[in-house]
Amino acid sequence: MRMYDIIQKKRDGGVLSEAEIKWFLEGYVKGEIPDYQAAALCMAIYFRGMNLEETAALTFAVRDSGERLDFSEIHGLRVDKHSTGGVGDKTSLVVAPIVASLGVKVAKMSGRGLGHTGGTIDKLEAIPGFKTSLPIDEFKEIVNRVGIAIVGQNAELAPADKLLYALRDVTATVDSLPLIVSSIMGKKLAADDDCIVLDVKTGSGAFMKTEEKSRELAQWMVEIGKRAGKRMRALITDMDTPLGYAIGNSLEVIESIQTLKGQGPQDLTEICIALAANILNLAEKGTYAECEQMAKDAIANGTALQCFADMVTAQGGKGDWILHPEQFPTAKYSYTVRAKESGYITGVDAEGYGVASLLLGAGRNTKEDVIDPAAGIYLMAKTGDYVEVGTPIATLYSERENTFAQSEARLLQATRIAKTAPEKKPLILGVVE
Amino acid sequence: MRMYDIIQKKRDGGVLSEAEIKWFLEGYVKGEIPDYQAAALCMAIYFRGMNLEETAALTFAVRDSGERLDFSEIHGLRVDKHSTGGVGDKTSLVVAPIVASLGVKVAKMSGRGLGHTGGTIDKLEAIPGFKTSLPIDEFKEIVNRVGIAIVGQNAELAPADKLLYALRDVTATVDSLPLIVSSIMGKKLAADDDCIVLDVKTGSGAFMKTEEKSRELAQWMVEIGKRAGKRMRALITDMDTPLGYAIGNSLEVIESIQTLKGQGPQDLTEICIALAANILNLAEKGTYAECEQMAKDAIANGTALQCFADMVTAQGGKGDWILHPEQFPTAKYSYTVRAKESGYITGVDAEGYGVASLLLGAGRNTKEDVIDPAAGIYLMAKTGDYVEVGTPIATLYSERENTFAQSEARLLQATRIAKTAPEKKPLILGVVE
Repeated sequence: MRMYDIIQKKRDGGVLSEAEIKWFLEGYVKGEIPDYQAAALCMAIYFRGMNLEETAALTFAVRDSGERLDFSEIHGLRVDKHSTGGVGDKTSLVVAPIVASLGVKVAKMSGRGLGHTGGTIDKLEAIPGFKTSLPIDEFKEIVNRVGIAIVGQNAELAPADKLLYALRDVTATVDSLPLIVSSIMGKKLAADDDCIVLDVKTGSGAFMKTEEKSRELAQWMVEIGKRAGKRMRALITDMDTPLGYAIGNSLEVIESIQTLKGQGPQDLTEICIALAANILNLAEKGTYAECEQMAKDAIANGTALQCFADMVTAQGGKGDWILHPEQFPTAKYSYTVRAKESGYITGVDAEGYGVASLLLGAGRNTKEDVIDPAAGIYLMAKTGDYVEVGTPIATLYSERENTFAQSEARLLQATRIAKTAPEKKPLILGVVE
Repeated sequence: MRMYDIIQKKRDGGVLSEAEIKWFLEGYVKGEIPDYQAAALCMAIYFRGMNLEETAALTFAVRDSGERLDFSEIHGLRVDKHSTGGVGDKTSLVVAPIVASLGVKVAKMSGRGLGHTGGTIDKLEAIPGFKTSLPIDEFKEIVNRVGIAIVGQNAELAPADKLLYALRDVTATVDSLPLIVSSIMGKKLAADDDCIVLDVKTGSGAFMKTEEKSRELAQWMVEIGKRAGKRMRALITDMDTPLGYAIGNSLEVIESIQTLKGQGPQDLTEICIALAANILNLAEKGTYAECEQMAKDAIANGTALQCFADMVTAQGGKGDWILHPEQFPTAKYSYTVRAKESGYITGVDAEGYGVASLLLGAGRNTKEDVIDPAAGIYLMAKTGDYVEVGTPIATLYSERENTFAQSEARLLQATRIAKTAPEKKPLILGVVE
């Protein structure tokens, strides 16, 4: 086989065989196929796409590019929940404890954030002492004992994805459906879960800007997961506006705790209950209505919050802070952003809010950047709210006072205000199974 | 500027600015922009194309990437002739001496062949002693004295093209109109000629397989040459069948000499007269009809052949062999290919003939391959001829007897025979100016 012929075939709209896809990915991981040929192929895939068979072959090749986990020592049904990423998306921190407290096992490998969206691991590291890297035996022991453990993705898991994503990131080939599918599902399938529930975000803050593209992404991931023997379900949820009010690591942990106490924002609570109910239903814990009630009860009776605190303690963190979150330190400086005009907030550019938060120190521009756990944004007005000139719309938090001007400008630029109220859109746009 | 943004802009169908194109090419030549980003951009250009402005900017950036020649010490109008390359294309060896013998100066830099088409330099090296590399002062002195000199392209001339072509060659991005235009014209414009006549080949043996695409290529090159202050003209000529009967280096030199003696094949003679007449007309030597007559006369009275012999002598080669070509050695082995069926030859795949010749030792698969000057093919039947089973259609020449079987198979595979005679097509399909 020659890489040239594979590039040319895809360039001309041909369908690559499973053997060709495997040969490419294995050769690329071994360093036998140079970056420039892989880059040319990614761009050809960007333009020509891949059909479901090709995408499945690429996904399985990514899955098989490194070690595969064996969770057979974990007792009970194992579930995973994955979000395609969004600004202010802290759903994992709420959903995982709910379902774990109800008897399904959550052995979760999460990513770090890069760019305008934060990662679950970065959020958990805002809790002092919390270890996001554990020996595999200790990880399994915690899952068996507490019902849940969350660690960072191990470098040996699907290494092809790491290499390919780094290349796509600098060659403008990230936004390609088959490449996104194979990246997400390749990693997910290398772990050893029985059920996977996906939260596919749509809108300005997401990978996929339209509902149609997001539905397609969800359908392909669900189908490929099923082919790999998993029980699959996906929710399409709105990411035109950040979820909840908090953006930034410790701010988001605190908001997750409030939600687990039943005092969280309405939108975040609604999505978390829906995700938890879908996971429980997929794990055959009852009808959807029964599962929804179970999830609500786990919040109301405090078992979900206790489960979160137990996981934090088990992983070396201050579990007591989860029960008493007023102990989280606040940032050294804060600043109130006020509306510059009167009217309804008709929409926000969630990506712009993410960048505004990153500028305050809450995220990374490069892999080497250090995150300030307390930096971030607390929103005081959201889409649909009416504001007057001077009404506070957000509080910015940072360890560096000189970040406020630029962050404020970015936030205001990302906030659309008009005279008429926007149409109310549903938060959950569909379920794919 | 960021390379990512440039790739993304082109990927999304945007028009790159002159500044962006220059920044990319300069950075790439300096090694500041990695191959993988350049490969992604080339593939994006393959799909999205470039408009004329962008292509001109890229061409001028290629031209300016290295040293630019100064031919002001050469007296008189300087002309260049360039062919987009074809199997058996030895027109430069005929046309250049004709026009030089009529008083226009030919200071020519030619390329080597790679793949299935031979280069003019490879052909000239079949003449013992001929130096294809000369100090620039000696080169200019010969042009002034003899009227013509032909040397190999200097590595400092348009180095960006060399780098970019090598990358395109392994990433399936050669077949892109703007990239072909900027590659050919970038090199041509780095030399210092007044007039450029292009021979744009069309058909199975050429870069461009259709007349429409070839015409577009010709129009763009002519337009960009004019913008650089050159007098330009292009002929669109058929390359569905090899030109003349000879394919291979010394075989082609001998056929060129026969043509300069007025005893060459009809198709080769017709194209050479047309190219010479266009060059002379562009150099204002007379009306087109007058120039055509002058070219025919230069053949009839022997001055063109003598000019070729003088150039060979001046460049260190055996000029006497040009006047008495029976001195060229023949290959050690020869083999006659015979028709396997009866009928008319309705067409040939010229590229296949090129590969058959390469297999005999007449060309290079890699840059390191050594060429056998006497290896090649002499055709005995061409498109339009009627053959019976067993009629000789070609003689193969090689220094290695074991090359014949594979070469014969490739040649027969590339020869289409049918019961009805093919429609006769014109050789010169159009002139662009």
